Amino acid sequence: MQENEEMGKTGIVYRIKKLKGFSFLHIIVDGKIIQAIFEGELPDAIKEQSAVAFTGIARKAQIKDKLIFPNDLELKITSLEALSTPSEIFPFDITKKELNINNSVLFDLRALSMRHPKIKAIFKIQEAIVIGFRSYLHRQGFSEIRTPKIVKAGAEGGANIFELNYFGSKAFLAQSPQFYKEFCCGVFQKVFEVGPVFRAEKHNTNRHINEYTSLDMEMGPIKSFFEIMKTEEEILKEIMATIEAQCSYELNLLEITLPQIKEIPVLKFSEAKEMVFKEYSIDERQEPDLSPLEESKICEFIKKKTGSDFVFVTHYPTVKRPFYAKESLHNREETESFDLLFRGIEITTGGQRIHEYHELIEKMQYRGMNVEEFTFFSNAHKYGLPPHGGFGMGLERLTQKIIGLDNIKEATMFPRDVTRLFP
Amino acid sequence: MQENEEMGKTGIVYRIKKLKGFSFLHIIVDGKIIQAIFEGELPDAIKEQSAVAFTGIARKAQIKDKLIFPNDLELKITSLEALSTPSEIFPFDITKKELNINNSVLFDLRALSMRHPKIKAIFKIQEAIVIGFRSYLHRQGFSEIRTPKIVKAGAEGGANIFELNYFGSKAFLAQSPQFYKEFCCGVFQKVFEVGPVFRAEKHNTNRHINEYTSLDMEMGPIKSFFEIMKTEEEILKEIMATIEAQCSYELNLLEITLPQIKEIPVLKFSEAKEMVFKEYSIDERQEPDLSPLEESKICEFIKKKTGSDFVFVTHYPTVKRPFYAKESLHNREETESFDLLFRGIEITTGGQRIHEYHELIEKMQYRGMNVEEFTFFSNAHKYGLPPHGGFGMGLERLTQKIIGLDNIKEATMFPRDVTRLFP
Repeated sequence: MQENEEMGKTGIVYRIKKLKGFSFLHIIVDGKIIQAIFEGELPDAIKEQSAVAFTGIARKAQIKDKLIFPNDLELKITSLEALSTPSEIFPFDITKKELNINNSVLFDLRALSMRHPKIKAIFKIQEAIVIGFRSYLHRQGFSEIRTPKIVKAGAEGGANIFELNYFGSKAFLAQSPQFYKEFCCGVFQKVFEVGPVFRAEKHNTNRHINEYTSLDMEMGPIKSFFEIMKTEEEILKEIMATIEAQCSYELNLLEITLPQIKEIPVLKFSEAKEMVFKEYSIDERQEPDLSPLEESKICEFIKKKTGSDFVFVTHYPTVKRPFYAKESLHNREETESFDLLFRGIEITTGGQRIHEYHELIEKMQYRGMNVEEFTFFSNAHKYGLPPHGGFGMGLERLTQKIIGLDNIKEATMFPRDVTRLFP
Repeated sequence: MQENEEMGKTGIVYRIKKLKGFSFLHIIVDGKIIQAIFEGELPDAIKEQSAVAFTGIARKAQIKDKLIFPNDLELKITSLEALSTPSEIFPFDITKKELNINNSVLFDLRALSMRHPKIKAIFKIQEAIVIGFRSYLHRQGFSEIRTPKIVKAGAEGGANIFELNYFGSKAFLAQSPQFYKEFCCGVFQKVFEVGPVFRAEKHNTNRHINEYTSLDMEMGPIKSFFEIMKTEEEILKEIMATIEAQCSYELNLLEITLPQIKEIPVLKFSEAKEMVFKEYSIDERQEPDLSPLEESKICEFIKKKTGSDFVFVTHYPTVKRPFYAKESLHNREETESFDLLFRGIEITTGGQRIHEYHELIEKMQYRGMNVEEFTFFSNAHKYGLPPHGGFGMGLERLTQKIIGLDNIKEATMFPRDVTRLFP
């Protein structure tokens, strides 16, 4: 709105402050909160959380509040009508600067707690992340795909998969779109998907949820998995630029500084282990994976040394990667793979995949897998797939770490964990 | 590419035609097929479906083929290297103008059959539909939301819901994001989601699949459900414009004419029934829903009368709509709801929802529902929701009908039906 502009709008009353002869109203209009002055007695039907239709004239505001947008104007109400009235007053004060309710209430009453401007802001930033991800990949000629969530076989193996009865057959919820995005590399060459994935992990931590959104991409033909990392770096730059451009209100409200991305440092897995041992006297060099502690120390070290919040760790041991991961030519015990760590935790796993049919079959046999069962997958390799690879990035973890939230569930609209299946 | 341009690219060899002393190659580059000439003996590793790296110079082409883009140029290859070579030749001829394999093979070997240009084109058009949907709604200030697919209660009721074991509790796969998008109306007011939904319907027809993509929106505050229909009309216009702008190659290949949308005609449910009876002597006026035959006749009649491929049918009987549908003020036996029919079938169900808490509780009691069980839903109403409504549109049906495919499964990358759970 602009000074002296007359406007007629609908909105939601967020806050009412009654004074002598008039009331201050904060009204949510088009996603932003405006300040309005209503002179006289406020009708009974107008309460906090009422939907209203109103007209008014914009004028210079006295009070500046970063909740208000634009914060130099207020609206003098000329007509006001209630479109809905809540039956009861809110079970907690949604107009407080900080909500400060415990996580159990926060999530039990998610439809209500999300109305707090600082919680809503989390999801506007999350939305911008997805917009940035998509917009970069679309511009680079990637095709958006839609792959099934009810599947016959899990891509990641292991026990952490949800099972369901599919008309009398055993079926599973997809742990990742891996097989399908590889198929689609044979069709479109460069593809991405933004969709839900499901992990039946029993541990209830501040970094795990059982249903999350995966930002997945897969591309071919490639000559090295470094091309994938380069693409991820460019994606992350665009994500930060999109948040910057679309979410200045939210960044200001949450007091966030976005990470600066220039060139993301790269460390080999074995070098990273050695560094953690040397710098922090933590010796987990015999373990074939990074522990949460090591991940956190690697990030700490890289931040101190280079200023970067992100770091790529490459060449993870073959034994810890899935069967479809491509082994390095010169050393079959490590893979052409990477994780991306961000502010202490892993947010991406990626790498080059096996594209050669016989290599895939040998690998499955070596692992004692039922080769027949995966014919639907290996068929694509048999009849030709380009050298390809990609990554999956957890949207909620990325959101959590950009904003600096303690718990990944705070970055999930309706989180699912071992004990939480509602709302 | 342009005449005399030197280019170095990677791609997939789609077709090889060997002649005396040289070969014609069709190579897929950046999603389009270019024509290339290779002089001399083609290396063994270069086969159809090989990935290749090449350089060449563009020159005027002799042969014009609508498969080729741009179709007035060809590339004289100056260097060619195989990046991958298939182990076996394709099980069917993917270079034929029409694939002509039966649906069972088509879907069993989906990773291969999708490589046919005319099948791939279906999914490029589908992608453009989603881009148009999102881009219109983003521009109108809608927020994109992500709602859970593992839920405690189904939104649509009935038996057609998949059940799963969630760490010892009974859980379901979401039939629709309905409850969640209503919650989000209280948070963001205008929201949309593009995501999978699951229906355990046992009938295996050419218009049903068990996992599909729903284009969902919900908006508030509204004064009438006609605002939702108006928004859907604008969305459809943008979808068609997006396909037109992004998919001229595919439209040409599939020989499709897009539907023209001006103002979509509107018929009341009862009027539509009467019209079908009068015009076609089909008397199903006692039934509280439209049969597939009636839907098809309504479309036929409207097309003949107005030229429109779309028609809104409004005010469906209360008895056939879910408990959250808003009844009309003057007649509680009908609802403030609509379906959108397109070329013979329903592609959208929408309408205004109950936003008033007591109205919702009464409706649930009247239907004999367990009110307690839905507290997580009715809480949002208790503490205030704007008058709101929205719709869900099936992406695969819309794709099917725009392109003119016999079976909805052809418009699904990896379809799921009663007997099909793979690939």
